[in-house]
Amino acid sequence: MFRHTRALQYNAKPDRPDPIMARRLQEALGGQWGETTGMMSYLSQGWSSTGDEKYKDLLLDTGTEEIGHVEMISTMIGYLLEGAPTTMTSEEMKNDPAKAALLSGMDPEHALVHGLTAGLNNPNGAAWNAGYVTSSGNLVADMRFNVVRESEARLQVSRLYDMTDDEGVRDMLKFLLARETQHQLQFMKAQEELEEKYGVIVPGNMHDVEHSEFAHVLMNFSDGEGSRAFEGQVAKDGQKFTYQENPEAMGGVPKGKPADPRLHNDQG
Amino acid sequence: MFRHTRALQYNAKPDRPDPIMARRLQEALGGQWGETTGMMSYLSQGWSSTGDEKYKDLLLDTGTEEIGHVEMISTMIGYLLEGAPTTMTSEEMKNDPAKAALLSGMDPEHALVHGLTAGLNNPNGAAWNAGYVTSSGNLVADMRFNVVRESEARLQVSRLYDMTDDEGVRDMLKFLLARETQHQLQFMKAQEELEEKYGVIVPGNMHDVEHSEFAHVLMNFSDGEGSRAFEGQVAKDGQKFTYQENPEAMGGVPKGKPADPRLHNDQG
Amino acid sequence: MFRHTRALQYNAKPDRPDPIMARRLQEALGGQWGETTGMMSYLSQGWSSTGDEKYKDLLLDTGTEEIGHVEMISTMIGYLLEGAPTTMTSEEMKNDPAKAALLSGMDPEHALVHGLTAGLNNPNGAAWNAGYVTSSGNLVADMRFNVVRESEARLQVSRLYDMTDDEGVRDMLKFLLARETQHQLQFMKAQEELEEKYGVIVPGNMHDVEHSEFAHVLMNFSDGEGSRAFEGQVAKDGQKFTYQENPEAMGGVPKGKPADPRLHNDQG
Amino acid sequence: MFRHTRALQYNAKPDRPDPIMARRLQEALGGQWGETTGMMSYLSQGWSSTGDEKYKDLLLDTGTEEIGHVEMISTMIGYLLEGAPTTMTSEEMKNDPAKAALLSGMDPEHALVHGLTAGLNNPNGAAWNAGYVTSSGNLVADMRFNVVRESEARLQVSRLYDMTDDEGVRDMLKFLLARETQHQLQFMKAQEELEEKYGVIVPGNMHDVEHSEFAHVLMNFSDGEGSRAFEGQVAKDGQKFTYQENPEAMGGVPKGKPADPRLHNDQG
Amino acid sequence: MFRHTRALQYNAKPDRPDPIMARRLQEALGGQWGETTGMMSYLSQGWSSTGDEKYKDLLLDTGTEEIGHVEMISTMIGYLLEGAPTTMTSEEMKNDPAKAALLSGMDPEHALVHGLTAGLNNPNGAAWNAGYVTSSGNLVADMRFNVVRESEARLQVSRLYDMTDDEGVRDMLKFLLARETQHQLQFMKAQEELEEKYGVIVPGNMHDVEHSEFAHVLMNFSDGEGSRAFEGQVAKDGQKFTYQENPEAMGGVPKGKPADPRLHNDQG
Amino acid sequence: MFRHTRALQYNAKPDRPDPIMARRLQEALGGQWGETTGMMSYLSQGWSSTGDEKYKDLLLDTGTEEIGHVEMISTMIGYLLEGAPTTMTSEEMKNDPAKAALLSGMDPEHALVHGLTAGLNNPNGAAWNAGYVTSSGNLVADMRFNVVRESEARLQVSRLYDMTDDEGVRDMLKFLLARETQHQLQFMKAQEELEEKYGVIVPGNMHDVEHSEFAHVLMNFSDGEGSRAFEGQVAKDGQKFTYQENPEAMGGVPKGKPADPRLHNDQG
Ligand SMILES: [Ca+2]
Ligand SMILES: [Ca+2]
Ligand SMILES: [Ca+2]
Ligand SMILES: [Ca+2]
Ligand SMILES: [Ca+2]
Ligand SMILES: [Ca+2]
Repeated sequence: MFRHTRALQYNAKPDRPDPIMARRLQEALGGQWGETTGMMSYLSQGWSSTGDEKYKDLLLDTGTEEIGHVEMISTMIGYLLEGAPTTMTSEEMKNDPAKAALLSGMDPEHALVHGLTAGLNNPNGAAWNAGYVTSSGNLVADMRFNVVRESEARLQVSRLYDMTDDEGVRDMLKFLLARETQHQLQFMKAQEELEEKYGVIVPGNMHDVEHSEFAHVLMNFSDGEGSRAFEGQVAKDGQKFTYQENPEAMGGVPKGKPADPRLHNDQG
Repeated sequence: MFRHTRALQYNAKPDRPDPIMARRLQEALGGQWGETTGMMSYLSQGWSSTGDEKYKDLLLDTGTEEIGHVEMISTMIGYLLEGAPTTMTSEEMKNDPAKAALLSGMDPEHALVHGLTAGLNNPNGAAWNAGYVTSSGNLVADMRFNVVRESEARLQVSRLYDMTDDEGVRDMLKFLLARETQHQLQFMKAQEELEEKYGVIVPGNMHDVEHSEFAHVLMNFSDGEGSRAFEGQVAKDGQKFTYQENPEAMGGVPKGKPADPRLHNDQG
Repeated sequence: MFRHTRALQYNAKPDRPDPIMARRLQEALGGQWGETTGMMSYLSQGWSSTGDEKYKDLLLDTGTEEIGHVEMISTMIGYLLEGAPTTMTSEEMKNDPAKAALLSGMDPEHALVHGLTAGLNNPNGAAWNAGYVTSSGNLVADMRFNVVRESEARLQVSRLYDMTDDEGVRDMLKFLLARETQHQLQFMKAQEELEEKYGVIVPGNMHDVEHSEFAHVLMNFSDGEGSRAFEGQVAKDGQKFTYQENPEAMGGVPKGKPADPRLHNDQG
Repeated sequence: MFRHTRALQYNAKPDRPDPIMARRLQEALGGQWGETTGMMSYLSQGWSSTGDEKYKDLLLDTGTEEIGHVEMISTMIGYLLEGAPTTMTSEEMKNDPAKAALLSGMDPEHALVHGLTAGLNNPNGAAWNAGYVTSSGNLVADMRFNVVRESEARLQVSRLYDMTDDEGVRDMLKFLLARETQHQLQFMKAQEELEEKYGVIVPGNMHDVEHSEFAHVLMNFSDGEGSRAFEGQVAKDGQKFTYQENPEAMGGVPKGKPADPRLHNDQG
Repeated sequence: MFRHTRALQYNAKPDRPDPIMARRLQEALGGQWGETTGMMSYLSQGWSSTGDEKYKDLLLDTGTEEIGHVEMISTMIGYLLEGAPTTMTSEEMKNDPAKAALLSGMDPEHALVHGLTAGLNNPNGAAWNAGYVTSSGNLVADMRFNVVRESEARLQVSRLYDMTDDEGVRDMLKFLLARETQHQLQFMKAQEELEEKYGVIVPGNMHDVEHSEFAHVLMNFSDGEGSRAFEGQVAKDGQKFTYQENPEAMGGVPKGKPADPRLHNDQG
Repeated sequence: MFRHTRALQYNAKPDRPDPIMARRLQEALGGQWGETTGMMSYLSQGWSSTGDEKYKDLLLDTGTEEIGHVEMISTMIGYLLEGAPTTMTSEEMKNDPAKAALLSGMDPEHALVHGLTAGLNNPNGAAWNAGYVTSSGNLVADMRFNVVRESEARLQVSRLYDMTDDEGVRDMLKFLLARETQHQLQFMKAQEELEEKYGVIVPGNMHDVEHSEFAHVLMNFSDGEGSRAFEGQVAKDGQKFTYQENPEAMGGVPKGKPADPRLHNDQG
């Protein structure tokens, strides 16, 4: 069960409106690696966890924090859209081409669909969808996913930082950068502990099943020579990589049977 | 530029048809973490890489291999669908309820849309989409993503292995397990080398920008006590985690301005 | 069965081309609350209705009218795109930055994919999809949905009206405004009649099933005090709202069982 | 900012596992009208509201409650999936066709992708997406949408109730039914207050703009006679409906100009 | 503008309910190549056509007919769902495993979301979307697309025909087969006329632009020898195909420049 | 199994960067009719083909070539994005409105998500999805689809050609035009051969099943007179088209039964 405090976790007010920056920030709200993806992934993983309390709690702590980040970014986008232009005549465009460019760079649905408030989309207006979320039941895999979520998100926040000189926006981004540092580090720590228990390969107990003669071979399918550099190096599981210059096709040529005529597979 | 050999990389022939297993294998073909996601992510990353040849080549080697995995799984699905039932009368269902269950457990589009061959979907018929792909320009983040792709994929292949006793299917899965071991290890190795160069936090050069006082604090937003276990532990960047029992709302209550009347935001 | 008259229901010709307005009008064609959503929702509801003829006919009358609105808006978009620029050199952009802004504000797929005609998308190019449609079998719920469809659509048409000064476009929008007034009113009327028969709560006959002690309690999960204003007010079903300042967590802490090892849920 | 209590708002434990019911409950979690749609719509509306505190708070109170409902349903699905079968040989299917039917009726991704826990999908595995969410800036329209969300959701919960005899599941559904009664009523109350202020037509101030001669005419586009019943009745705005038996095509036949040859619109 | 007749174009009543057949028919309603795709493609092409009246009218005639096919299939699905089971206890499943299989083979959303009526989805519940529609402005290309639409649809209708022995359903399918024969033929006729005017290559006037030395070469990128059979054959434009056994890589190895550091493309 | 050569099939280097052209080229990469659609359709068809080797090989040859086209276009987009602006202050926008328009016309995700490299999207940022792919098991239908893919693609490439004067970009487009000429011609040839075997109607053997009295009738559902021109003409199967001025509604008015009360279909 959740409770909400009207006060934000951190300041989310720009110095001045900037509707193009509002559009860009939609990535952090509704993009593939945005806060909504973090929120729904961590909460789902936390709710379904049946293992060690410390990982379950870590996921729920962080998933709950992310709802607050969704809130902050929504708030910021709303501020940035205040007073944004929604139309210009062709006469006005001629007289003020910079403003015309501003209008063209905005998301037209910000005004038309949302009345100059945030939507749950990326900057190109693609609706956020749960195909971005991961909750697999295997916490080693999912902790790795969580580290990626925080890495891609911090990368995007860094790029956003360099796309504005508004000190209010930057102040919020500096806070998010720090939280994404923490989240990368905490999920890495959890990942490492779990790897100690289950091994570095996910999932942990299939090594005696796999065809192990193919498990440490770097196969050269592209004619660049670069990847040969890994030959002989020691992998994280302690074994060495070998290199196969010309990987062979071991499987033979497949030959299926024609389908039943009732499928009408006219094939010549 | 690519060339194709008709012979498969490895055997992809089942001992006998099994249309429900065909449906399950669609996850490895067209699911969020299936081979198509690997193929398109690694190739995209490889094509756009401008850095060290060894990473670029590693990505192109592996991306090219994955096209062959897409081929193997498509082939296997085709074999598994051979001779599958496509309909039963209610009389027949009564007389053979096990076959009726088989028919109900199949993907009806396998027959209706694809003539008993594979489609580029997951087992629930959701079309594969590029929202599953990642290619960010930052190879530390993307190598991490690649490790996740191989981890989630190997997890699913392990589950698939336990869902069949067909030795032909299992033979192919044992091969895929091994390749996913190799791919996890090789991308981890690349990740580690890159982390040595850029640091463990992605991206590498924003530490003096972030509000560092929040960068190592585990904030307790959920009333479980589990995550306190991380307090005082050393994070991968060498600093210690602190723990904040009652994280405060530092941002104040936001207060936006009403929109221009032409937006018709009737709000009371 | 349907028949088509080439003549439009109402004038859909602008005074002059305006490709940015064409882009905006895509919202009314292929957006979440556009005419296609109305058309497919009302027709689906009408076709599946087995109750009173007057509601079935109302739905089919209006659904059929909406196909004609889809036609009008498609036609208008085509006119607005006539002669639109499709490219400029950087030299030309420098010499005519207003035209450059115009080009940047257009949907590039209007030219590239549709040859300067309409597509079934919203202004951000997101394809219309049937996740926008509602046809539930319950006409009280669906009449309410229809009122919403007409409300959100009329809101967007109002915003569109203020985004252009083209008298031809405005003439069409004034007509659509009026029709959306009618459609709001007619669906409200149907809704009210149905509410008289089934009660104001959808669906109608589950009151003796629900845990009624929670059915009129406004629970305060956010620390703002505003919603307390509803305390003691009389709800539409004649009962009074109560207010719970501190809603309790009644459900206990859930504790699931670990999954079978064959699921490989390595969880620590 | 949000805080989380591990204890659930209400009991979410079934008497016994039932993986087909787990699949059905995905509708309430990740379907078009499920709790996630409520959560994201109310929070988005609340965050972007700049008007009367009582509506803003009502939205945030309810949006926050819905996160807890998402949690309850995720938890229930996890319980219902405990010990679910994940595979059967054809021999086993023959010996236990009822279990075979059970396996065929499950969502195969529950095991394969989520390790027998919930996913953010509907029962057919379609990923939840933000095209289901509404936040328009106009609270009259959005309060109406919210009433629909609660109506469609309560309808589905009622259907779910009749699809199980598990008393634990039913207990949770009885609670949800009651909360959806409250939410229907509270949003209706807000809607009515706002209608008093702005009028019953959304948006409120465009009546002098629209072509009012078409604003109260029921046009007969389908040959059923049913809708004539509304003729002469008084609409909610106090005016009477008229009925047009043969609505005319007032717009003339459109005639566009051929596109520039560089668009290659070969049209005959 | 459109008008609707309540009577159907053709009989759409089954002899008896069959909810699994209802699910299969969703392909013809809301699948990639279903009637909705035909309806929206032909109408869009017709509305945007500025060329010869005969093609414009052909498109509008056929697009309008397709709305009636959408209606027929929706109606049929509704009939097929009448009285369908919506739940069984595990006891009942044991006692009647054939009925259990029937329940498992149905679309659970038919009952849960639509109250046992049709939805605008394919049999796997994927929402129809406008990514299936084509309207390019070039009628040669689009007439070809229309032939494909009718070909894939008639293929699916043929498969559906063999999946049922219900004479009522078959009667409707026999009608649809005939109409899809007509539609294939009429669009082929239009295509051929247009090809006579513009040439067989779409679009018509770019032959002096293309690098013509590559315009009739079958390049052998896969080691099968089969395609060599086309060598020397006369193509539809009168020229002969040549065959290149080992197509060369003519483009050199690309080498991009590293991005600006503000993009944080840490690449090694 | 596949192998990759780092050298491109053809030159893919522009004379100078042009981020708006980069955006447009995304259509050829990740749009409905782009190279990815070709690649996945031809490979899927080829892998699942069980008929004549010459068609199977033709599909695999061409599918493999298309991977190389995906590579070329990704490479070109990367070059075009080199050094692209990612932000401007409002001061800078005023001083250089042409550059501001350039920035507004770019895809903001090129910088923000991909670090100025290609994504698998169309120019509006919609993720490529497998709903664009066709592989039906029937090669007559699918060869027709393939001709359409190459027709729509060549149309778009022609439009792209006229949208740039960069000789490097044009050089690549001239090559693609030629390959799309070849691909149109080769798939037409295969289509014709298959039509000779199976007949011109897809699928081939249902003529004695269909209601043939409706199989050559052009029905006039739209009041334009244009399509009457087809009356009496000889269709490709040798029969003549007839024309029905007033197609009748032969199916009667449908009348469904009310659903079971447990579905709560309150309908009045
Ligand atoms: Ca290599
Ligand atoms: Ca905690
Ligand atoms: Ca409150
Ligand atoms: Ca009527
Ligand atoms: Ca070959
Ligand atoms: Ca006509």
